[in-house]
Amino acid sequence: MAPFLNIPCQDPPQLKSLGIVGVGLLGGSIALAARMRGLAERVVGLGRNPERMQLALDVGLIDAVAAGPGDLRDCDLIVLCTPVNRIVEDALQLQLAVGKVPLMTDVGSVKGPICAPLAKALPEQFVGSHPLAGSEQAGFEAARPNLFEGRTCVVTPVPESPVEVVNKISDFWRSLGMEVHLLEADEHDRLLALTSHLPHVAAAALAAQLTPTAAPLAATGFRDTTRVAAGDAALWAAILQMNATAVSAELRRLLDNLQEFRAALDARDGAKLQQLLAAGQAGRQLFTAAQQAGATAD
Amino acid sequence: MAPFLNIPCQDPPQLKSLGIVGVGLLGGSIALAARMRGLAERVVGLGRNPERMQLALDVGLIDAVAAGPGDLRDCDLIVLCTPVNRIVEDALQLQLAVGKVPLMTDVGSVKGPICAPLAKALPEQFVGSHPLAGSEQAGFEAARPNLFEGRTCVVTPVPESPVEVVNKISDFWRSLGMEVHLLEADEHDRLLALTSHLPHVAAAALAAQLTPTAAPLAATGFRDTTRVAAGDAALWAAILQMNATAVSAELRRLLDNLQEFRAALDARDGAKLQQLLAAGQAGRQLFTAAQQAGATAD
Repeated sequence: MAPFLNIPCQDPPQLKSLGIVGVGLLGGSIALAARMRGLAERVVGLGRNPERMQLALDVGLIDAVAAGPGDLRDCDLIVLCTPVNRIVEDALQLQLAVGKVPLMTDVGSVKGPICAPLAKALPEQFVGSHPLAGSEQAGFEAARPNLFEGRTCVVTPVPESPVEVVNKISDFWRSLGMEVHLLEADEHDRLLALTSHLPHVAAAALAAQLTPTAAPLAATGFRDTTRVAAGDAALWAAILQMNATAVSAELRRLLDNLQEFRAALDARDGAKLQQLLAAGQAGRQLFTAAQQAGATAD
Repeated sequence: MAPFLNIPCQDPPQLKSLGIVGVGLLGGSIALAARMRGLAERVVGLGRNPERMQLALDVGLIDAVAAGPGDLRDCDLIVLCTPVNRIVEDALQLQLAVGKVPLMTDVGSVKGPICAPLAKALPEQFVGSHPLAGSEQAGFEAARPNLFEGRTCVVTPVPESPVEVVNKISDFWRSLGMEVHLLEADEHDRLLALTSHLPHVAAAALAAQLTPTAAPLAATGFRDTTRVAAGDAALWAAILQMNATAVSAELRRLLDNLQEFRAALDARDGAKLQQLLAAGQAGRQLFTAAQQAGATAD
């Protein structure tokens, strides 16, 4: 599979009905973006909390509230935006409720444990996605129609995925302004362990160390380094648990690296400290160069 | 010593001549802010690179370039903005060059190893400072006159410091828009190890792990968590070396915390992962509350 396909949207989808399961930050932002870009005649939301769904309807995020999975029968595309550990179950429940489900994708931050079972159960309908967009905020109150613009979306087909399904789902993300990268699900999980899940662990561990005495002296460095630690703990515990093998492997490398820092500190070895810090600078330059080359920049 | 004095500037300094030793991001920003706020009739810069100093003069950062330390003889206040491991030497050279030096402070990120020798050598003239402002950028091209507004400055007198000197230096920072916290130098270093130096180590270690394959998939989480890793490696090696004991102690706690994450990952212990992440959320809330209560917010 070509790792990085960067092609513009060839064929913007004209959906009669777009289904969003789980109308939070991501689901709400997809709904808003699809409505503002005229990608769907109708956006239907399905959620567990009727009052929240009514509010989403009232504020104009969605056009209709589904009473149950059966109401999504006529959608052209369903995007599963529920927590990562509920997506497989939600997809299978949809299948039970509607018989042959429409085209489906998801927004889960871990892909292997989602795509393996769903590619078996729904080979013609489901291709997984992970739009690299979001924030430490939760709930559709934080939704933004431009959340996806200029960002990367990883789409993770299996070898059996029909090309036209992969293309339709890729074009859907492109039509929201995203650049699509095709990757195998397990490769996605290994790479995201490094670029997203490990930084989350490090940020949480750092933030947990803050004391009331030190807090007034925390400035912009602390602020940025720990920003993602504000994210929902239950959601992130599920992500880490589902990608535990890859995250643990990356965490072992981080621990080794930090032990080197500690040894250099204890030895007052300025040259070694500078060498370790220069490796960090080089990694940061790699990141900056990738941002400038790609679409993830903002 | 009262840990946190938050009093407005009572007596804005009217300096005839302000000396800046080291005209980089911080020195340049102090010069700009002092000129724009009318705090000094004249700002004199001293630096090692004559071409850079001429440029600082040409672009209007400073009013005059000092040919050597002796030219700072008539300043009312000198702010040492050289790298943290050069400040003591620079202060003592100034003393040698001018005999009785004027009032002096510095901007170093570590205070104990600076304030201990200088409080002995210059008890009537020197009180250390650490304005909690800056960025991962370097050089006076990145200088901003509002860099200090709404930020915290830690001032670290010794018991022998004359009250009027502490007040004059505190008022100087207040006149740049900062809130002044008085702390003992060693206490400053212990707290900053946690709020600034440890996050820098973690950011550098994380950034160093990035690979060319993973870089295109690094998004806003990686961007923010590793931002400070772009900072100057030599400068930060000096900071870490000078505060090695406190940073090593905090790093040991971080390693313990990350080992707990790793054990929970390997055991697929979702409840433990959530508990560890919730501790991170709580630390982040402590930070946010301190930002809202204090002046460090932006």
